[in-house]
Amino acid sequence: MKSTKLSTLLGIEYPIIQGGMVWCSGWKLASAVSNCGGLGVIGSGSMNPELLREHIVKCKKATDKPFAVNIPLIYQHAYDYIPLLLELEVPVVITSAGSPKKFTAQLKEKGVKVGHVVPSAKLAKKCQDAGVDFVVCEGFEAGGHNGLEETTSFCLIPQVARSVSIPFAAAGGIATGAQILASQVLGAQGVQIGTRFACSEESSAHENFKNHIAESCEGNTMLTLKKIVPVRLAKNDFFTQIKSLEEKTQDSYENLSELLGRGRARKGIFEGDLKEGELEYGQISSLVDEVLPVKVIMKQLLEEYEQARIECQQI
Amino acid sequence: MKSTKLSTLLGIEYPIIQGGMVWCSGWKLASAVSNCGGLGVIGSGSMNPELLREHIVKCKKATDKPFAVNIPLIYQHAYDYIPLLLELEVPVVITSAGSPKKFTAQLKEKGVKVGHVVPSAKLAKKCQDAGVDFVVCEGFEAGGHNGLEETTSFCLIPQVARSVSIPFAAAGGIATGAQILASQVLGAQGVQIGTRFACSEESSAHENFKNHIAESCEGNTMLTLKKIVPVRLAKNDFFTQIKSLEEKTQDSYENLSELLGRGRARKGIFEGDLKEGELEYGQISSLVDEVLPVKVIMKQLLEEYEQARIECQQI
Repeated sequence: MKSTKLSTLLGIEYPIIQGGMVWCSGWKLASAVSNCGGLGVIGSGSMNPELLREHIVKCKKATDKPFAVNIPLIYQHAYDYIPLLLELEVPVVITSAGSPKKFTAQLKEKGVKVGHVVPSAKLAKKCQDAGVDFVVCEGFEAGGHNGLEETTSFCLIPQVARSVSIPFAAAGGIATGAQILASQVLGAQGVQIGTRFACSEESSAHENFKNHIAESCEGNTMLTLKKIVPVRLAKNDFFTQIKSLEEKTQDSYENLSELLGRGRARKGIFEGDLKEGELEYGQISSLVDEVLPVKVIMKQLLEEYEQARIECQQI
Repeated sequence: MKSTKLSTLLGIEYPIIQGGMVWCSGWKLASAVSNCGGLGVIGSGSMNPELLREHIVKCKKATDKPFAVNIPLIYQHAYDYIPLLLELEVPVVITSAGSPKKFTAQLKEKGVKVGHVVPSAKLAKKCQDAGVDFVVCEGFEAGGHNGLEETTSFCLIPQVARSVSIPFAAAGGIATGAQILASQVLGAQGVQIGTRFACSEESSAHENFKNHIAESCEGNTMLTLKKIVPVRLAKNDFFTQIKSLEEKTQDSYENLSELLGRGRARKGIFEGDLKEGELEYGQISSLVDEVLPVKVIMKQLLEEYEQARIECQQI
């Protein structure tokens, strides 16, 4: 897999970013991906500042390669993170779920590379205008939080390619080497992979959650909660409770917010309660069949990619 | 663009199928696509048997190349069509929205090639088991009627590739040559293109509808009516009326059925009422910028495809 504008920008060997995922991507997963030549990402969404500090320090001990921290700007601690990231000299920061104008200048001034996650070409352009170094465009098929316009990777990638000149990674629905090549054919300079890494040995998710992904079938997830924050979830008991409350309370979301506010993502992903927990993963889970070490996943991705390249030359 | 298992099966030069679309794809569009080396498809959904006969006869006069008729099995006339198609020796029939077991054996017995449109790998496998010659797998981003599981092309194509050995075309979100190559990289042997051909000079849609597609932006469509039959529509006044009725009538769909039963697709697509009509087109409409003759569209698709192949070799 050759270097691209994105891998060169980030100083990594392969243009593969591991998605920052709540309760999955701590220092173990991030450092393992970085050590294999991708960009490991610590997902700060499930961490308080003290815990994030601990993960960054451990990650830096475990790898001398570039890694990133993902910061969803809607979370309460987002503002507290910035001085911490600067103090600990985190080389790459990926912001999401907020304005790309918020912290970009401040971070770039200190030499940090800044990426932002977007669900549309329009927002990708705004990121470029705000001085962001690269964007991650995330399609409707992605797990977890999602855009309002429901644009899929097949439609989103070429539109982002047409709209910006900064490098960008495609995310959403990508779990194989052939899909990395297809993303590049559509104009991306790399990819972000979530679900396949959530299902790695180094992921801090509960064993039950990983096995659940490995066994999941086509049609196992659905975008829901569209009137609050759209999020892609597995269709388990908790999902059914959400749907039922959504139908009952057309205009008031108090009950729903109460249901959601009970640490359900932790319960599902970290504690392994597959019935009552919130299970966030992507539509491509049906192509992820095994829990494997990151080293093996990266090796398979590269092999699948080479195979797809060879086959593409024969098309 | 080289031949594939799909183009060989269908006896066409390029593995490009034009989607059968209500009020868009009559004999003019179908014969134009077939004459350019693709598979033109007459969409029977908006025709009674007499009108369909007229279109088939005219199509046969306008081209000596293979063409197809698409039959949505939920429409009232579906049963009346079969003897007509056999009498007029239509070479390819593509069924959709019903069981692939219904007419496949009867059609194949007379030498007709049979395809079926599917939204999932599971149904693709059922088609193969039912003796269908090829499938068209249609992702969530496609215009018009859509699957319940909302699987996107990026996720659907590799799953269908893994599930069946018969040739298949990818549909949904495909309007450029690079997207044809990406579909092949993901495992498809060809594509079905709807929206870009709906926006051709030969399309029988109203000029207003075609110009509307050419001007449409990212996020212009949304999948709706999920509790009746999911359908992707432009967000116009009619769409807003549907959404409003859906929210009001949680359990009863009488008002909604009445609203839908008023020939709104004809009004929007064929008569060009952009406010009160039902406008069915795909999410990829934002990449379709011009109303062009089929000959130019096909030429551009081939050029874009070649360009993407060259670029792919340099990735």
